[in-house]
Amino acid sequence: MDKVYVAVLGLGTIGKGVVKVLQNNADQWVKKCGAEIEIKKALERSQEMVRQVALPEGVATDDWKQIIDDPDIKIIIEVLGGIEPARTFIIEALKRGKSVVTANKDLMAEHGEELFAAAEESETDLYFEASVAGGIPIIAVLKQSLAANNIKKIMGIVNGTTNYILTRMSRAGLSFEAALAEAKTLGYAEANPTNDVEGYDAARKIAILASIAFHTRVKFQDVHVEGITKITAEDIAHAAELGYVIKLLGITREDNEQIEVRVHPALVPVEHPLANVNDAFNAVYVHGDAVGETMFYGRGAGQLPTASAVVGDIIEIAKNLQRNCSGRLLCTCYDNKKIKDFGDVVSKYYLRMNVIDKPGVLASIASVFGNHGVSLASVIQKDADRKENAELVVITHKVKESDIQDALKVIREMSITIRIDNLIRVEGS
Amino acid sequence: MDKVYVAVLGLGTIGKGVVKVLQNNADQWVKKCGAEIEIKKALERSQEMVRQVALPEGVATDDWKQIIDDPDIKIIIEVLGGIEPARTFIIEALKRGKSVVTANKDLMAEHGEELFAAAEESETDLYFEASVAGGIPIIAVLKQSLAANNIKKIMGIVNGTTNYILTRMSRAGLSFEAALAEAKTLGYAEANPTNDVEGYDAARKIAILASIAFHTRVKFQDVHVEGITKITAEDIAHAAELGYVIKLLGITREDNEQIEVRVHPALVPVEHPLANVNDAFNAVYVHGDAVGETMFYGRGAGQLPTASAVVGDIIEIAKNLQRNCSGRLLCTCYDNKKIKDFGDVVSKYYLRMNVIDKPGVLASIASVFGNHGVSLASVIQKDADRKENAELVVITHKVKESDIQDALKVIREMSITIRIDNLIRVEGS
Repeated sequence: MDKVYVAVLGLGTIGKGVVKVLQNNADQWVKKCGAEIEIKKALERSQEMVRQVALPEGVATDDWKQIIDDPDIKIIIEVLGGIEPARTFIIEALKRGKSVVTANKDLMAEHGEELFAAAEESETDLYFEASVAGGIPIIAVLKQSLAANNIKKIMGIVNGTTNYILTRMSRAGLSFEAALAEAKTLGYAEANPTNDVEGYDAARKIAILASIAFHTRVKFQDVHVEGITKITAEDIAHAAELGYVIKLLGITREDNEQIEVRVHPALVPVEHPLANVNDAFNAVYVHGDAVGETMFYGRGAGQLPTASAVVGDIIEIAKNLQRNCSGRLLCTCYDNKKIKDFGDVVSKYYLRMNVIDKPGVLASIASVFGNHGVSLASVIQKDADRKENAELVVITHKVKESDIQDALKVIREMSITIRIDNLIRVEGS
Repeated sequence: MDKVYVAVLGLGTIGKGVVKVLQNNADQWVKKCGAEIEIKKALERSQEMVRQVALPEGVATDDWKQIIDDPDIKIIIEVLGGIEPARTFIIEALKRGKSVVTANKDLMAEHGEELFAAAEESETDLYFEASVAGGIPIIAVLKQSLAANNIKKIMGIVNGTTNYILTRMSRAGLSFEAALAEAKTLGYAEANPTNDVEGYDAARKIAILASIAFHTRVKFQDVHVEGITKITAEDIAHAAELGYVIKLLGITREDNEQIEVRVHPALVPVEHPLANVNDAFNAVYVHGDAVGETMFYGRGAGQLPTASAVVGDIIEIAKNLQRNCSGRLLCTCYDNKKIKDFGDVVSKYYLRMNVIDKPGVLASIASVFGNHGVSLASVIQKDADRKENAELVVITHKVKESDIQDALKVIREMSITIRIDNLIRVEGS
């Protein structure tokens, strides 16, 4: 095969990036995979988008049939995003024996099983490196480079928008609202930032990583998700005083054959490798039984970083086509481990609350915690916000989620409690 | 193929680790590569070493012929280290159609071309992930995940011993000698630490990374090497004041179709991702034209991290054997770029010197620099070490190596110069 013909579905930001990288480094492909890579078709309805790329006459089309029915096209590059029509296109392509590269985390986190079944059936390749952490190699790393390991834990900063916001809150003392506004101005946050700031985007990514790490299909719906909208400048300042930074983490770990999978803000010790991942950068920290601690750092989004991952996958698939070994690396979900109930998850906690400032208050609260098996690592009384009130900041030892929630139910009802400001997990220590 | 038979050459630290990982996670291999992986032979002369692993009767042998002549053995795992007999064993194995995994940086950095020629000839696999940065996936990352990129630059902390020493000098204010003694006590440094502290170990690793990144055979002999023995506690303290940490970096970059490849200590800005890589950890920072900045972090040495990389390679090769596509990923040195003369390398510099403290001294020195095209970013006069002397710390703008060396030749001969204490490059800013 002298040429591998590909079709790009969608000429949005990522699609344009893929075209750019394929064209810019075109002199390399024969050397890298034994064949030229040529874009035979690009599916795009918008003439505006088509005009923004330098594709030869007749390549752009709004007719899917021209692509799916073309036997020359061996690789479909799905960069449309969203569930439909991406899902239908990918399944049709796989069924016709075409291999697929996708950057679509929504789809992989919800319909991965169905897509892999289609790929396995036709012995084609389905690669999706760009779906998690943009340009950072993490899916190939887990499936191949770290394959010798039983993975113990993954903690990822996998959403650049929220990491930018938290970095600005931390470094410039901004409020959440001010940092979000700045992120919007810079194009890091969308007009409707829900998907990012509520953690849904990170949840899709950690579901995909959990599926690979623990060989068990984990879906978006399995992930416990909390966003960063309740994090205040005060929390960040208190955390800093205590030697921590606050990050939005996607976390998955195996414990007694059960999988934990969750997204929430967390206090991370300043000396932890993830603590120094700032601005819109992403990083995935992986702990394996043989390799120990590793971390993979880079740009988790953006046109060219994402295209780097997509084109890397195209090259791998092209090599497989050349060597007649498509389907060499398929679904690795050969186990079926249970997802742990969230109430059973064990963490350390940071708790910030306001209480009436009178003798015996701390003793009462400590006693409620003690009754629920919550032991305290440190208690700091902070500046009072009014004369008769005191702010308490508590760091607990490891405790079961359901136990601390039960304790907080009691504390919330106590007459000395003015309010519970925030409860944030402590990770990586 | 239900079973892939392998032979381990050498039951030293790494060999024992490979046996451990292959045995501990044995239930996984069928799921991960479609076949069991069984150690059929282990080459080891020392009965003491043999007793330290749990291999069945008859597996250990001191007879290479029993291995090379066994047609069942498909993969040879070379963890002997050193050039001979490793080189001969690997070439014989490849010629007989056996695939090879090696952790041997000395061999890859000096004889890579010859080994790859043998692998290509017989269409077998030659994998060597463990030869650089231990457990950190970097070779597969460069060859596959980042294949879409033109790599611009790699900077690596690829020697754990020197990173431990520099971390202790930096954090505890130790002298080089004291930190080295501590590293020896902890087993991080060998009795004869030359290979590490003079940068030779790092040079082999950066030669291998340069070969892959720039598709050009770069050998150990091509690397300009400076070690860390001249770094003093004063340099580290001055660097910290200026916002830098000192790291031993392996650096390779492409500039005008020429390859720079060098190992030397460098001042790295504290906010650079490499600045936070401490103790015996390694990290490789890679800048690609599409992906932008990335970094890969983990344990660069040690029994199990290294075994993680070796066994990861074994699994890849076993998959290739199952799919009949051995040789799928071979030598990527398809270019033949020139190695840049070291005198043409451009850097910023930190210079610390002692001068006689009298009016006009700074003007004289600045004038020499100016005559040689060296422009100064900052000049700081530090505490005098005797009343009539002053310590000057200078940071330059970018300047050609040969120009600053010429300037220093003149300055060294000036009557106002007492001594030039240190000249260290500044990188990553």
